[in-house]
Amino acid sequence: MTASALSSLLAPRSIALVGASENAARIGGRPLRYLREAGFAGAVYPVNPNRDTVQGFQAYSSIQALPESPDVAILAVPAAATVQAVQDCADRGIGSAIVFSAGFAETSDEGRVMQETIAGIAREANMRVLGPNCLGVFNTRQNFYGTFSAILDTGFIQPGPVSVVSQSGAYGSHITHLARQRGLGIDHWVTTGNECDIDVAEALHWVVAQPDVNVVMAYAEGIRNRDKFIEALEIARERETAIVFMKVGRSEVGQHAVSSHTAALAGSDAVFDAVLRQYGVYRAATTAEQLDVAYAASRGIFPRGNRLGIFTLSGGFGIQMADDAADAGLDVAPMPEDAQTELKEMLPYASPRNPVDATAQALTDLPLMTRFIDAMLDKGGYDMFAGIFGSGPASPTFAASLRQALEDATAGKQDCIKCVTMTAPTEIVRSYEEKGFLIYEDGTALTNALGALVKFRQNFDLAKATKRTNALAAPAAIPQRAISEHEAKAILVAAGIPFPEERLVAPGEDPTAAADTVGYPLVMKIASADLPHKTEVGGVALNLRSPEAVREAMTKMLASVREKAPDAHLDGVILAPMISGGVETIVGVFNDPVMGPVVMFGLGGVFVEVLKDVTFRAAPFDEDEAMRMIRDIRGYAMLEGVRGAQRSDVAALAKLLSRLSHFAAANADAIASIDLNPVMVMPEGQGVRPLDALIVAAAGGEISSHA
Amino acid sequence: MTASALSSLLAPRSIALVGASENAARIGGRPLRYLREAGFAGAVYPVNPNRDTVQGFQAYSSIQALPESPDVAILAVPAAATVQAVQDCADRGIGSAIVFSAGFAETSDEGRVMQETIAGIAREANMRVLGPNCLGVFNTRQNFYGTFSAILDTGFIQPGPVSVVSQSGAYGSHITHLARQRGLGIDHWVTTGNECDIDVAEALHWVVAQPDVNVVMAYAEGIRNRDKFIEALEIARERETAIVFMKVGRSEVGQHAVSSHTAALAGSDAVFDAVLRQYGVYRAATTAEQLDVAYAASRGIFPRGNRLGIFTLSGGFGIQMADDAADAGLDVAPMPEDAQTELKEMLPYASPRNPVDATAQALTDLPLMTRFIDAMLDKGGYDMFAGIFGSGPASPTFAASLRQALEDATAGKQDCIKCVTMTAPTEIVRSYEEKGFLIYEDGTALTNALGALVKFRQNFDLAKATKRTNALAAPAAIPQRAISEHEAKAILVAAGIPFPEERLVAPGEDPTAAADTVGYPLVMKIASADLPHKTEVGGVALNLRSPEAVREAMTKMLASVREKAPDAHLDGVILAPMISGGVETIVGVFNDPVMGPVVMFGLGGVFVEVLKDVTFRAAPFDEDEAMRMIRDIRGYAMLEGVRGAQRSDVAALAKLLSRLSHFAAANADAIASIDLNPVMVMPEGQGVRPLDALIVAAAGGEISSHA
Repeated sequence: MTASALSSLLAPRSIALVGASENAARIGGRPLRYLREAGFAGAVYPVNPNRDTVQGFQAYSSIQALPESPDVAILAVPAAATVQAVQDCADRGIGSAIVFSAGFAETSDEGRVMQETIAGIAREANMRVLGPNCLGVFNTRQNFYGTFSAILDTGFIQPGPVSVVSQSGAYGSHITHLARQRGLGIDHWVTTGNECDIDVAEALHWVVAQPDVNVVMAYAEGIRNRDKFIEALEIARERETAIVFMKVGRSEVGQHAVSSHTAALAGSDAVFDAVLRQYGVYRAATTAEQLDVAYAASRGIFPRGNRLGIFTLSGGFGIQMADDAADAGLDVAPMPEDAQTELKEMLPYASPRNPVDATAQALTDLPLMTRFIDAMLDKGGYDMFAGIFGSGPASPTFAASLRQALEDATAGKQDCIKCVTMTAPTEIVRSYEEKGFLIYEDGTALTNALGALVKFRQNFDLAKATKRTNALAAPAAIPQRAISEHEAKAILVAAGIPFPEERLVAPGEDPTAAADTVGYPLVMKIASADLPHKTEVGGVALNLRSPEAVREAMTKMLASVREKAPDAHLDGVILAPMISGGVETIVGVFNDPVMGPVVMFGLGGVFVEVLKDVTFRAAPFDEDEAMRMIRDIRGYAMLEGVRGAQRSDVAALAKLLSRLSHFAAANADAIASIDLNPVMVMPEGQGVRPLDALIVAAAGGEISSHA
Repeated sequence: MTASALSSLLAPRSIALVGASENAARIGGRPLRYLREAGFAGAVYPVNPNRDTVQGFQAYSSIQALPESPDVAILAVPAAATVQAVQDCADRGIGSAIVFSAGFAETSDEGRVMQETIAGIAREANMRVLGPNCLGVFNTRQNFYGTFSAILDTGFIQPGPVSVVSQSGAYGSHITHLARQRGLGIDHWVTTGNECDIDVAEALHWVVAQPDVNVVMAYAEGIRNRDKFIEALEIARERETAIVFMKVGRSEVGQHAVSSHTAALAGSDAVFDAVLRQYGVYRAATTAEQLDVAYAASRGIFPRGNRLGIFTLSGGFGIQMADDAADAGLDVAPMPEDAQTELKEMLPYASPRNPVDATAQALTDLPLMTRFIDAMLDKGGYDMFAGIFGSGPASPTFAASLRQALEDATAGKQDCIKCVTMTAPTEIVRSYEEKGFLIYEDGTALTNALGALVKFRQNFDLAKATKRTNALAAPAAIPQRAISEHEAKAILVAAGIPFPEERLVAPGEDPTAAADTVGYPLVMKIASADLPHKTEVGGVALNLRSPEAVREAMTKMLASVREKAPDAHLDGVILAPMISGGVETIVGVFNDPVMGPVVMFGLGGVFVEVLKDVTFRAAPFDEDEAMRMIRDIRGYAMLEGVRGAQRSDVAALAKLLSRLSHFAAANADAIASIDLNPVMVMPEGQGVRPLDALIVAAAGGEISSHA
């Protein structure tokens, strides 16, 4: 599976179309028509046993009869004929096949078997397959249209800095249609359908490595190749390519529909969401938002900071945009005092602070408007400028002079991202865009998109500071059976996770010496791989303050456990220091069906129980990322210290999370889950104290034979 | 200020235009042109000393010279000439004046004085004034256009079930322009500007009482007349008129801009937000959302339940809409099993559950689509139906047959709200709308609007169960000075707020008898109006378990307080039972600058300190509303009982909140704030225990002379 394998699919020199039709409205006719009309420069071979030519191209009776082995074969044949067609392609040594037909894994068990057969044939022949149940691909720079998407009926797509990768062909078509209406050019377009071979992750991986891509609009219900996906996100971040993602299936009913649709694996949406944030991908909540953000990012220009200057002719609109800007994390910083005085002198009615309100007066005195905006850009120090103009520019005559006034004011200010809101016909919008302005109809959409640009910039800069974690530590020896608490702790200590020093005392042994070493007060817990739930069997004693208390507690504990769990093998009891103070947190690791090993972090107590205030990261990650993870939670202020409490040792917590993530990644195959609950985060400089550890082996299970 | 006073403004029989201009593009010319072209049936009197006629109407040299006293005078004169013009109108006995000019309170202190002069003249003459700094009004049913809004240059507005009330003229114009593009008709349009007399509240109050109004789009930065506003919301709810509100100034920078704009009072945005929810108003986050929700509500049809059936030709879109529907609180309930079997027999590829995915097959077999949708509406029991059609209907030929197929399927199903998403030209959209379909381009916008309709229905039904609280209890005697804890408790007990029984023991008195009555363990607190912060002066002792301990504590406490606050007058000490168990909450009352007496509720501890998890209601409200208030908070599960804890006595808490709200409303003028912190909510059936009470009198203040 080399990059060139996908190149045969996405940048082919020769194309076969199996099931080619003379009727340019049919699925087997459309791609041929598109290739012809767009002027694809390579060879096109229609396969049709009944005709000499199809749509003017010389036709061939079969795949075997082709004069050469083409880079890609488009299969426009029914599901029942697909297995044979794929076999023929494989036999002919074709690089890639695109399978349009539905009726596979999404439909029935029989279809699933056919799909697996196709995948097997392709794997064996080292041939790549896109689909089945997909709408194909296009590459506008090569005029290559391997698709039957009907959106091309109303015109081809202009090449441009946007690419589209979508599991759903219908969604991919729709967003592309909307992008075209918005004036956006698109280079590559890939729809992956049922993904029997190539998935969204691999398509994304190929697309983000192409030159001149500033933004990718992606759609997925789930991801099959986690490592490829994360690598694609890392490459995109390094290359400063913005990804704007529509991930569906976040609701229960949506997840149910996902599994009945493309039969994609449905992992946790919260984990998927966290991973997108982790790698700086923008997750769009709506299709409109996906387009609005992609439009802003399509220029490939991202602001240095988050300062926004707002210019308005109406106070109300200015207030609305100031609110929206605050929501989007932008800084509506006031103009310097002297500049405010200057503006006030120009127009006493004006509000010169920011939003700068020049009132409707500025519309009747355009030179005044130019001077106002010029002053904002010269003296405000803004990274972004937004002018609110409503339907003013809609008048064709006025549009030109207003545009000129704006152009004059912004000339030479290349560093500042310049935006205008207006309700105007497309041709007027385009005339402003040609002068470098981003145009939005809705102010909220604009500020949201600007906020996204700021976050992209921050994440791109982050990538420069982050090394890619290709090298994992050597795996540890994880027993594939029930693992006791003290075993788990020993494994984790070896991985660099700090635990309070503790002692194991075997049954029959006197605990006094061990207790003296640990120090008082202390905690006693039963030590047994068979008893993950210790409290229920009387296996926990807190706050023991003397040798006598320890001896007595040990006798009582062993008796209680032997009575309640007679079959459990007992290693003895653990003695550990009783920790007081600190903020209670919980840390965990689990294998997400989609995202693989994932680290979870949250505050303990009501935060996790009532508010489900937890966050996730795909493993592994560094300490900086762990710091961002910690700051994700709503109750973060608890760690900053509330009501005069000391700040907690967040750095030590970040170190623990990062180390645990490396351990989880290196041992992903051997571990089902890890729980550190609670982890007490002590005051700054005093570290963290995990008080319990549970490791469930991949092939071990928490449930022992005695449970 | 009778209703008819606003009728002279909004439904006048005769109009004067002061500053009338022959130039129909000028502010003094536009209204005349609009009245002429629209064909206003009443008398129109231009006032212009220099002309015999203006735009074909007979002109008059002055207001005094008018042949009758018109209902309304539109003043299109500069700020400097406005005071005299208003005086002339008052002298002539004119009912209402509309002041267009800016340059008043929003500009300078001098302008503020002029504005107050205008308001004074009007008040004295019993004349109503709209503005200054406003864009006027229109009433399309009467062809009355008292505005210079430029949106009318491109055509008049059709009458219809929507009304617009906006502080900002520019915003009101913009949303009206967008509504027109959307095909919505508008009856009344009022912009209030600086609101020297008539404010948004009063305009809303008038508009919601008009016949045939289904929805009002409102915009405000703040409200001046709180009682009128809340009464308007109550009337709207009773008449089943939906209000979709754009309230700006929610951010700090936005609030700052509000105060420099129309100089409106900026109360707490969180309080405003809570009051809108309390009365069933939909607060729009964006202008697009305001329009989308108003469009859905414009039919005046609200669903009985929240069940949504989704029909799609593409799995991906179905999943996306299912997610969005879940976010909007809609129930994407599955089709009955037998109906699913039936659909699967019709089309084996289909997903028959819900979303119902008939695949692209249904586009080539429209009778199949009809049968599918027919089955959904017949057997699914859905309150709402949404079909996802993308750009399918955009083809003019196909649109008709597709529309027919949808019409056939939905014929006779009047109870179900029918919606379609499509990207199509306006005339095609209108053709579907005429058949009763709501049309959206974006599926998220659609589901959000449907969720809003469900909430409107719930709130309208609520209004039927809620009596309006016109009659307040008689005010209590609230001392206008510092009020001690035991005084505050006595006042609140009289108002029906239950406190644990306590005893006041005077200095020098033996506390034993009182302690025995209260019972052990108990709490002792210093009793002094001068010491609101008791802990700091050693004025609190907890968990006293014997007569000796009580005596000792009293001696120590009096000594400590006398030393630390020698000037405080001491009433003695309060003995109260030590309460254990229960969930800690906080309850408060304060006077919001905009919304007046407001009750606050939240959970104690980290919920309020870290998460600011509090909610508000305008006082007074009933126990049902108090229940909704309690459920508002994020940590509500704490009161339901977490981790096996008992459910708390939420009913008793609701009763306390409602009673406190009535007390706060009845004594709004006498009280600045009330704090009950903490209020322990005991297990179900065991009531609530407020442990402390602080009342700050309006003219008293917390700070005593000794502090």
